[in-house]
Amino acid sequence: MTVSASTPSSSTDLTTESTRVLYDQLVVLLKDISHIKGISHLLGWDQMVMMPKKAQDARANHMSVLDATIHGMETSPVLGALLEECERRRLGGDLSAELNPYELANIRIALKSYRQETLVPKELVRELASATAKANFAWKEAREASDFSKFAPFLEEQVKLTRQSVAYKINGGVCEEARKINQKARAALGLSDEDECYKGYYQVLVDIYEPGFKDDHLQVLFGDLKKDLIPLIAKIKAKNFQHENGFLKGDFDIKRQAEFSDKFPTRMGFDMDAGRLDEATHPFCTSAHPTDVRLATRYALDNFQEGITSTIHETGHALYDQGLNMEYVDTPVSLPLSVGIHESQSLLWERLIMLSKPFWTYTLPLLKEQFADRENLQAVSLDQFYLAFNRVEPTLIRLEADEVTYSMHIILRYEIEKALIEGDIQVADVPALWNAKMKEYLGLDVTEDRLGCLQDIHWSVGIMGYFPTYTLGSIYAVQIYDHARELIPDLDEHLAKGEFQVLKEWLNKNVHEKGSLHASGDDLIFELTGKPLDSSLYVKYLTKKYTSIYDL
Amino acid sequence: MTVSASTPSSSTDLTTESTRVLYDQLVVLLKDISHIKGISHLLGWDQMVMMPKKAQDARANHMSVLDATIHGMETSPVLGALLEECERRRLGGDLSAELNPYELANIRIALKSYRQETLVPKELVRELASATAKANFAWKEAREASDFSKFAPFLEEQVKLTRQSVAYKINGGVCEEARKINQKARAALGLSDEDECYKGYYQVLVDIYEPGFKDDHLQVLFGDLKKDLIPLIAKIKAKNFQHENGFLKGDFDIKRQAEFSDKFPTRMGFDMDAGRLDEATHPFCTSAHPTDVRLATRYALDNFQEGITSTIHETGHALYDQGLNMEYVDTPVSLPLSVGIHESQSLLWERLIMLSKPFWTYTLPLLKEQFADRENLQAVSLDQFYLAFNRVEPTLIRLEADEVTYSMHIILRYEIEKALIEGDIQVADVPALWNAKMKEYLGLDVTEDRLGCLQDIHWSVGIMGYFPTYTLGSIYAVQIYDHARELIPDLDEHLAKGEFQVLKEWLNKNVHEKGSLHASGDDLIFELTGKPLDSSLYVKYLTKKYTSIYDL
Repeated sequence: MTVSASTPSSSTDLTTESTRVLYDQLVVLLKDISHIKGISHLLGWDQMVMMPKKAQDARANHMSVLDATIHGMETSPVLGALLEECERRRLGGDLSAELNPYELANIRIALKSYRQETLVPKELVRELASATAKANFAWKEAREASDFSKFAPFLEEQVKLTRQSVAYKINGGVCEEARKINQKARAALGLSDEDECYKGYYQVLVDIYEPGFKDDHLQVLFGDLKKDLIPLIAKIKAKNFQHENGFLKGDFDIKRQAEFSDKFPTRMGFDMDAGRLDEATHPFCTSAHPTDVRLATRYALDNFQEGITSTIHETGHALYDQGLNMEYVDTPVSLPLSVGIHESQSLLWERLIMLSKPFWTYTLPLLKEQFADRENLQAVSLDQFYLAFNRVEPTLIRLEADEVTYSMHIILRYEIEKALIEGDIQVADVPALWNAKMKEYLGLDVTEDRLGCLQDIHWSVGIMGYFPTYTLGSIYAVQIYDHARELIPDLDEHLAKGEFQVLKEWLNKNVHEKGSLHASGDDLIFELTGKPLDSSLYVKYLTKKYTSIYDL
Repeated sequence: MTVSASTPSSSTDLTTESTRVLYDQLVVLLKDISHIKGISHLLGWDQMVMMPKKAQDARANHMSVLDATIHGMETSPVLGALLEECERRRLGGDLSAELNPYELANIRIALKSYRQETLVPKELVRELASATAKANFAWKEAREASDFSKFAPFLEEQVKLTRQSVAYKINGGVCEEARKINQKARAALGLSDEDECYKGYYQVLVDIYEPGFKDDHLQVLFGDLKKDLIPLIAKIKAKNFQHENGFLKGDFDIKRQAEFSDKFPTRMGFDMDAGRLDEATHPFCTSAHPTDVRLATRYALDNFQEGITSTIHETGHALYDQGLNMEYVDTPVSLPLSVGIHESQSLLWERLIMLSKPFWTYTLPLLKEQFADRENLQAVSLDQFYLAFNRVEPTLIRLEADEVTYSMHIILRYEIEKALIEGDIQVADVPALWNAKMKEYLGLDVTEDRLGCLQDIHWSVGIMGYFPTYTLGSIYAVQIYDHARELIPDLDEHLAKGEFQVLKEWLNKNVHEKGSLHASGDDLIFELTGKPLDSSLYVKYLTKKYTSIYDL
């Protein structure tokens, strides 16, 4: 911890200090938290990329001490007292004469996070951790056996404990929107405060990953998507058409793939002096600091598309992490706004750029050069390549889904997990409901739980409310990219020449540097584009693109 | 921090608990300290091997928060109370009925380290840190200008502050031997407790790196070495002979060097599932845990010897780190005993094995195979190679010294830094004294401070008392290896077949697993060999070997 004259001690009388003094003291503590979390991210990277396999137990011990240290700093009474005093002043009047919008955002975010960390009693946190370990184990066994009933009692317990922790958060005031929804539902149903009512509980979970985003808005966005995408998917499926793609098949030497792919981060503007690119079993990006962003990708011998897709997707995340606001670095306002906005940055590059014609105008000749001995690749035209690279095929497995069908996987999960948490369905209802929705949205029959409601790890580790961020990311990405194209009129020409950095710099300025200044992804989009977040742009993008590709 | 029922709180009345209960509570705290230090070592490795260059400032912040966390844990009042209560009981009577020797060692080491961490006032620690930063900067400038006078005032300040911190330690009782020396000197000189007297101060510094080792013994060992090695070196020099070594010169492709060298850690018994080997600017070995030991080596294009030497030297360290006692892992008794013993493990492999004929009986054919296109290498015989590989040549630069002359560099530094700390010489005397000793010990004229008393970083960063561990390491290594040869009669045959692990296993059992059970390197050697530490074995080894090589 930084030992400095401005570090407060618990005995200081905060009420007599100026707000500026309180803020400066707060920043000292927040920076220390940022530093120690940076260490945690580095260890996470090391574990995935470098750690020898026998070090697993030792690393668990290392992380446990570090987590406890972080928790101690995040819940320190000195931090709490500073934040509550700032909040008292904010409620009593406007602080904007004393603090700028970035500083005010820091207080807002830090207070929320302090409350999140302190509201749930330690015993419940421990109970949740223990239930999670058991549920994750049971999920693996159930998936192996493809039998949801083996997982059901553990999911039941997860739902029960999650609701308990949500209740503490609602009562502690971390999510005003959830409280409103709950009150309204109680009034409508004539329930008292003592009656059980879980309405609004899902809002609290969404708010963890997508701060400030209203579940009501999610419902509207997802409803609109369903309305338009289900028929689009059905139309594509009915065509039953497959563009020639033999040139994408067969083995692509891993070393040559890596040589080819590894140049893209730099081309996109990733600074190799402020980060690294390595290989890992699962691609990821983690950041210890904007000057230390670690990328990991992977290559598959028989699937060339996977390597380049992973590299570009993760680089999209990495550009956000490197592009954060350095003036407020190591304080909450500089951090990425939400999981959905983070995903928008990876999806923008992965889908709107890497699946586009301008990208392959530049890249296809490079690919042909790198694999000069593949004759069928040499012969392929840009149009042929583009058509083959953009195939749509409904699948039962979310991780294999393309950009058209992916959202249906997400909406299905969103509807089920929300209904579960809010008590509209029972755990036992999950498999049948899953299978019915899969049929309705993608026209597919689920033959096994393994390929249906047991495919994702999320619920087993107590993660609910996260799924929506994937599709929110797509919606954000299209609206941000549409706006970028309006303001950079010759963008396609740049991309076709491999000049990707013009887009990177635009994103730096308009998205990355904003960090968490705005209260939600909705607000960021409105500030940036002058319009509310709108899923119809996403639908329009998909419809236009695939109408042409599939000649609908 | 591990949250457990046995973690003590500061309000517990320790005097009513059993020693076993106190010990168990202590172990919880000591393990947490070990875990958090493991993280620090990992970050150190990352910084040297992986970190992108722009992350330097961020990493300094990360380390600063982590160091403060470690310091907080090491100086926690709860830890202190437990240790002092154990010490009170030890002084009041024998604890060996309740605790085994490993457990007793844990208390002894932890108490000493707790006192080391808490005795020096914070203000002095800060003053030392600040003086060190300035001194290191001044040293770089002085070395650049080859002008000791530019560094002198900063060294003066280092000596002054170091003495102050030593005084706190002597008064706090961390080094009984130093107190005795000081009292004896005061009595002999008729000084009162108020008079300045720095006798015994150097003992405290030695004790930091070589716990329990008596400076009196160092003096005897080093005196004996000088007596025998100065004439040996003079004789070799007088021969003025250079064995043919053209086959070691010229470029050796780095990639092929790496392929060749990188197999040695595994051959020597290093477990690649419990560690890694990477490249770095400076070779090193660091350990987060016996299951996570990180090696780094380097290769020089025009110096084949450097790569293999670095790899084998660092692997010697790594085998010690991997071979520590797992029953007491993460507690002080399991840790390496001292810097000198650690160095003995690297030197044993680097010199006694890698510079030996049995080693090259096995290795030379592999080297010829790996560099099949080097004709002069193909033609060389084992004897020719051995002679060329073992050349002796006095040099002004410690880091370039061979195994015969290296100790002279160390003894010279030992004599000067001890005299400085204890007030027998002044800072201004250093260059002339250095140059005179260099002439006496190695027959060399120092023409520039840059090549003389300004060559090492140690004093500029406040490290005094460390140099002796290098030569202690050599003395330990020979005595340990002599003993191993007695007990493994066919050792040379094993080595000549590349069966290095028989030695590794012997070292595991006889040195590594002992950890810090014994109170000093002296004690370990006595327990292991049944004889006191004896530098004449080292002299005998060098004399026999080089009498033959140089036909003296």
